[in-house]
This record gives sequence, C-alpha cells and structure tokens, in this order.
Amino acid sequence: MLSSPAIITAMRQKKFILPESEIPARWYNIMADMKQLPQPMLNPKTHEPVKAEDLYHLFCKACSDQELDTVNRWIDIPEAVREKYSYWRCTPLVRAYGLEEALGTPAHIYFKNESVSPIGSHKLNSALAQAYYCSQEGISNITTETGAGQWGAALSYAAKVFGLECAVYQVRISYEQKPYRKSMMQAFGAQVTPSPSMSTRAGKDILTACPHHQGSLGTAISEAVELATTTPNCRYTLGSVLNHVALHQTVIGLEAEKQMALAGEYPDIVIACFGGGSNFGGLAFPFLRHTLTEGTKTRYIAAEPASCPKLTKGEFRYDYGDESGYTPLIPMFTLGHDFQPANIHAGGLRYHGAGAIVSQLLKDSLIEAVDIRQLDSFKAGLLFARTEGIIPAPESCHAIAAAVGEALGCKERGEKKVILFNLSGHGLVDMSAYDQYLSGSMSNTGD
Amino acid sequence: MLSSPAIITAMRQKKFILPESEIPARWYNIMADMKQLPQPMLNPKTHEPVKAEDLYHLFCKACSDQELDTVNRWIDIPEAVREKYSYWRCTPLVRAYGLEEALGTPAHIYFKNESVSPIGSHKLNSALAQAYYCSQEGISNITTETGAGQWGAALSYAAKVFGLECAVYQVRISYEQKPYRKSMMQAFGAQVTPSPSMSTRAGKDILTACPHHQGSLGTAISEAVELATTTPNCRYTLGSVLNHVALHQTVIGLEAEKQMALAGEYPDIVIACFGGGSNFGGLAFPFLRHTLTEGTKTRYIAAEPASCPKLTKGEFRYDYGDESGYTPLIPMFTLGHDFQPANIHAGGLRYHGAGAIVSQLLKDSLIEAVDIRQLDSFKAGLLFARTEGIIPAPESCHAIAAAVGEALGCKERGEKKVILFNLSGHGLVDMSAYDQYLSGSMSNTGD
Repeated sequence: MLSSPAIITAMRQKKFILPESEIPARWYNIMADMKQLPQPMLNPKTHEPVKAEDLYHLFCKACSDQELDTVNRWIDIPEAVREKYSYWRCTPLVRAYGLEEALGTPAHIYFKNESVSPIGSHKLNSALAQAYYCSQEGISNITTETGAGQWGAALSYAAKVFGLECAVYQVRISYEQKPYRKSMMQAFGAQVTPSPSMSTRAGKDILTACPHHQGSLGTAISEAVELATTTPNCRYTLGSVLNHVALHQTVIGLEAEKQMALAGEYPDIVIACFGGGSNFGGLAFPFLRHTLTEGTKTRYIAAEPASCPKLTKGEFRYDYGDESGYTPLIPMFTLGHDFQPANIHAGGLRYHGAGAIVSQLLKDSLIEAVDIRQLDSFKAGLLFARTEGIIPAPESCHAIAAAVGEALGCKERGEKKVILFNLSGHGLVDMSAYDQYLSGSMSNTGD
Repeated sequence: MLSSPAIITAMRQKKFILPESEIPARWYNIMADMKQLPQPMLNPKTHEPVKAEDLYHLFCKACSDQELDTVNRWIDIPEAVREKYSYWRCTPLVRAYGLEEALGTPAHIYFKNESVSPIGSHKLNSALAQAYYCSQEGISNITTETGAGQWGAALSYAAKVFGLECAVYQVRISYEQKPYRKSMMQAFGAQVTPSPSMSTRAGKDILTACPHHQGSLGTAISEAVELATTTPNCRYTLGSVLNHVALHQTVIGLEAEKQMALAGEYPDIVIACFGGGSNFGGLAFPFLRHTLTEGTKTRYIAAEPASCPKLTKGEFRYDYGDESGYTPLIPMFTLGHDFQPANIHAGGLRYHGAGAIVSQLLKDSLIEAVDIRQLDSFKAGLLFARTEGIIPAPESCHAIAAAVGEALGCKERGEKKVILFNLSGHGLVDMSAYDQYLSGSMSNTGD
C-alpha cells in the first residue's frame, strides 16, 4: 500500500569504490618519466643548483630528497601514513549523473571526491606524509602557511597525529573570511597567526611598507620559512608548489585510474583547479604517465582564477616561492613573487607561481590551462551543489567550471567525451562566499 | 633512500564498506515486531485515536500511512529515493582504533559514519523520502522546522532534487549561532525564517508573550505546521520524533548490521544521541529486532543532553509535539510541550519529547537512556576529533561521550565489549561551539 514496486531493479552505478587494500602502496614520481626535466632550483645567494642537503635546514630530509629525486619512478608510502590514509581513503570516484542531466550533455562526467577527507579536502594526503617524516627525524615543531585554511587544517591534524607542535600563518583575508578553518586548526591544537604579522621580520617589513596588507600565500610562506629557519628543531612544510607535495598527492590519480577502469572508461579530459599545482598534479600525473610513456591522447586542463593567471598570462622564468625571497629560485610560470592577488574566495588559488614540474609540462605543451572568473566559478559550483548535493570549495568550483565548459562544448559538437575532474574539497566552511554570490554582491576580483 | 620498507604489510581494516548494491531495498518497521505497541496518537480536539486520513492535510499520504503502519515489517524504498541514496550510501562503518588507543580500553569501538552525507548528517535519509513522496502526490511546497540546521539543510537539498519549493523555520538561537547552515539552505534554494517569527499566529503569540524568545524546536514546529495547514498544496515534513522518520533512518542500522558481520563482531552496546529519536531508532531498531524476535542481549543507550532530559527525567504521558498544541497528542516521555530548553549548541537535541516508539521501548525497559552535560560532550568530541580526525557535530558528541563512558567502564572491569555508536554528523559548521569550549567560556547550560 505504501511502497514502490517490490521488485528492485538494478540501479546505475553512481560511485566506484575501492577497498582499503587498494590504497596505493607507492606514490608516482613523474620526474622519472619526463623527457624534459624541470630546470634545477637555484640557491638564491650563489645561483648554483640546489642540492638536497641545501634544503635540510628548511624541510625534513625525506621531503628534501624526494624534491630532487628524478630517478625513482615509485616511492613507497610509509605504512604509518598509509594506515592514516585508511581513515578515509580510497575516496570515491563518482559519476556526475545529476550534473550531466542538468547540462544535457552527451559527455560522461566523473569526479574524484576528495571532499570526503575528514578535513574536507585533498590536503591531508601530503600533510600526513610531511608530519610523519618530521616525526621520524626527531623534529618537534612544524610550521606552514595557509590560504583558505584547507592546508593549515590538514597539517594541524597531521601534527596532532604524529605528536608535533604546529604553528600556522594564515593569509589575513582568509583568516577573516573563513573563521571556522581557524577554529578547526585550533581544535587540532595548532597555533594560528594571521599573516602578515608583526611576529616575523618578513611580516614587519610588509606591514610597515603596506599597513593594510590583506596577506597572500607568498607573504605567509615568508613568515613560516623565517620561523622555521630561526627556530631550533623546527621545519617548514608546504601545501603545494613543490615536487614532493605533488608526489604525495598522486594517490588521487592512482586510485582514479583504477576506478575509471571499474567504470569501464578512460578519461579524454582530466581537469583540476590550480593554485601551486599539487592538486592538479595529484590527479593528472598518474594519467600523464601513459601519455609520456605510451603516447596516450588525453587533455590535461589546469583551471586557474582569471584574477591570478600565472599559467595563462604569467612569464616562464626563475622566481622565488615567497614574497620576501627566502626560498630557492624555482623555474616557474609566475606573475612575480610580489604579485598581490585579488581577494577572491578561492584562497588556495591566490598564489603567484606554478610548481616546477607543471611549469615544464605547460612549456612542453603536455598540459593546458584555462582561466576562470570568480562569478563563473560560483555559477558552476552552485549548479553542482544543486545537482550533486555537495557544496564545493571555491577552489574546486574552478575545476567544475572548466568541466562544465568542456561538457557544453561536447553538447554543441555532439561529442561523447569522458571528463574527469578533481573535487578537491567541499565548501561547507566557505558559505559566506555563497552568501555573497547569492546576494549578488560578489565581483570577479573580490573588490 | 627515501622510502619505508618496500614490503607492504597487511593493514588492520579501518573501514567496513558495502557496495551500492547493498543499499537497503526496504526500511525496517519495528512496530511489526513490538509486543507492546505504542498507544495511539490522539486527535487533539476529539481525543479519539488518529487515523491516517486525519493526517493527510498535514503530511503527505505515504508518510501518514507509514506513521500508523503496525503490520508491514518491511517497507520498500522507492527506487528514486534509493538512487539518490547512492550519491553517498552505503556509509562506512569505522573501527575507532585511534579513540580506543587514547582511552586504553579493551573494548572495541565502532562508529557508523553518517557524516559523509553531502549535507553532513544522517538527516538526508528521511528528507529525500519525504520530498519524493510529496512530489509524487503532486504537492508543490513543503515546510519544516530545523534546530541546528542539519534537518533544514537536508530537506532544502531534497526539495531541490524533487522540484519542490521549501520554506524552513529555523530556531532563532541556532540561526544566529550557526549562520552557515542557513547559507546552505539558501544555496539549495530554500527560504529560511528565524523562529519565532512574526509571519505566523503561533510565532506572534510567542513573541508578544515573550519578546526575547530564543526559539525552540517546539516553537518552530508550530510555525511550520501553521504554514502547511493554511497554505494550499503545501505539506509539513518533520525531521525526527515521528514513526515514519525513524523508519526512513533504519537504513543506518540495516547497513551497520551487515558491516558488523564483515568485521566479524556483533555489538554488545548500541549508542546514539537523542533529540526526538530518529537517529537513535535509525541505528538501534534493526539490532533491536533481534532482541525482540530472538532475545539477543544487547544494550541500547540513548544519549540525551542533561539540560533537556526527557528520557531520564521526563514524564510518560500524552503531550503535543509542538509548543502551540497544533499537532496530535503523542504518547511520549516529555518535559512538557512548553519546556524551554537551555541554549546548548546541540540544537538538534533541544526538544521536549521523545517519539512514541522509543518512549514505549523505554517504558518496557528494552532501551536505556543516559544524560550528558554539554562540557562532557565537547570534551569527548574533541578527543574524538584529535584521534579519529573527524570533528563531530555537537549532537553526535553526546553519543561519543556515552561511548567513551562505556569504554572506560570496560577498562575498569577489564571487559572486551563491542560498542557501536552513530556518528550522526560532522561539526564543521558548528566550529563556533568548539571555539567557545576551547576558550573556556562554555557552560553546561548555554548561559
């Protein structure tokens, strides 16, 4: 009387799930397969290529070694890290039927759902690795920068897991826009300081030159690097840009590759949003290895904000990773290390440069980039929320907008392409951004 | 040089996962197995037992019929609902190794992780069902109340999925404490009004009698019921208390039962937090069926707030479900329908009464109840966050505190019990509560 027909028909499969035993045992190091390696990082004083030992005062040894490793294609994931991955991994690969139907596209759209991480984003993949290595090397304190707070929240939890003290410099505009991420970091026991702060020389220099500075990732990196290099037994950790961070993120693509096989498809187009490159690399590099080694034809699209367009409008040259010039010189597509990004809500994408590997791949036309305006990103993100149920992080909205653009292109041309994008995180702690979008008071530049 | 030993050892299993094909095809109706059925709901005017038809003006027909169904043990889940369940179900059953180790308990602690729902809580299980049935009956508008906003957010999304307009009355104190949940509802296209409001007679009466009324679930229900019953083609939906809501939530326990079998264990103790009873019933009823039909010895513990203690200190009698006395009379453990709960952060537990089924089960000593003070709930929640990585909803913190209490009892007595609790939701949108707890400014009563 109450119910639907008693015969339950087979549903179309929405999610492609792997058991814990399929959590990758090794990360993929794309440098072992690149025909054109990135140019070396340079010591900012001597302009000589950096050796791993030159980085040991800044990063833990394991990550310094990984940073320069161009030989080992596969790097074992420590069991302690893999065990912590099992708290939420493997993450689902999801077919976005709801979004496809709303767009009326013949394309098949899949997304890798990294938002199911307890912290809400992919950042934990590298945070756990970096905190673990530090703990193994007897380091007691770690520090970092964070924009929107996804990385800072992940590192705060990872530090707690491995018994480390953690100090985070959060970009001031995000600290104010997203107070809950600060609260998350504090709940995990971290100290959080809005950046620029008066607690470092770098912060003081910036604040005295520019009293109302809203902060940027480049500035916050300077502060964290200064703290790490002037504090005994303290190391710096970074949430993107560097090779070893992208390396740790390759669990995303390695899982996705197996899951696409479960779905019986292979992506024609792989898309991720782009801040420093680790989210993009994490999804794309495992697929790119087939392009590099077997010539597989796949398009790889990095979606960056139009207001911070290093890939589409930046210059390829050596530049610093931070505003104050503390870091090694990195060969990168850059807007200049003193570039002041607009106050968009996608705090994780407000960075002036691209990692060395991704920059080289773009230079060699192996990947593409597209720039997305803030309003277009939220339009796509809201459509995704209403059709797939998940409110995406402002950063992830850029990937969604790029995927929507490609799917609509398929519709126009009647093409049944397979599109895969990374849902790097959810936006439940970014709701003020959606408020602003819905109220019509959002601009493309955050002004 | 960089890596851990190359031989990957088998990890202990953290999560027990079911494929989509194992999403339950039917809900479990415990009334078909109860020896002592709940006394009937009464018409508030005639004091005659309510018939399903008497509810049709308030609820959709399907839910009204389910509400009074004491015969059918299994109710088919409509395929359209089950298909939407596949967006995130089955949810993981997780072994809380991190928590166990922190407590040093011999007990095995498992939790069902309903926080992975896109909305962040179990509420979507019933919201999708109710919205679907309304859409099938040609209803265009639905309305409801919400406390913390978990139910309101779920219903807003469900309404969007099935093409309905949705209006939500949110308890004022939660509307102010948790602004992001309001934003979530708005992102899904719902209209949100803080309650008590001046838009209904019930709201006006309360606000004129008590101008600074902070709101309660009972008040918000009155407003939503009034809107539903005075608006053409509009129906009321409820997020807990009623039998059909608990029915829809039994997917939690039905999955958990299979997953406990995968883990090779069976729970000695089943725990869930308690507002109106649907979260508790959702987990407990499928296990209780073995107690009712086979005499299986399991303890079932409802964890309620000490400041809203209907189960531990309430009276068993007929009472209204709402403050203004619009609803049928329900046989319930109650603090009185005009009880004003303290302003604790667990907005979803600020309700004066318990559902009829759970009340009967408590009366018959088939289940137990425990009251948890707010500070103890957050202490347990923070320990859980730091050991399991997931920041729990304030409501769920009550279940965690009860589980911790049982696990510590096991430690004292050297007992290796198996404890299962429901992590009904995450607390990422409740971070202001954690701020207050961490700053030492939280009290047990919210004052």
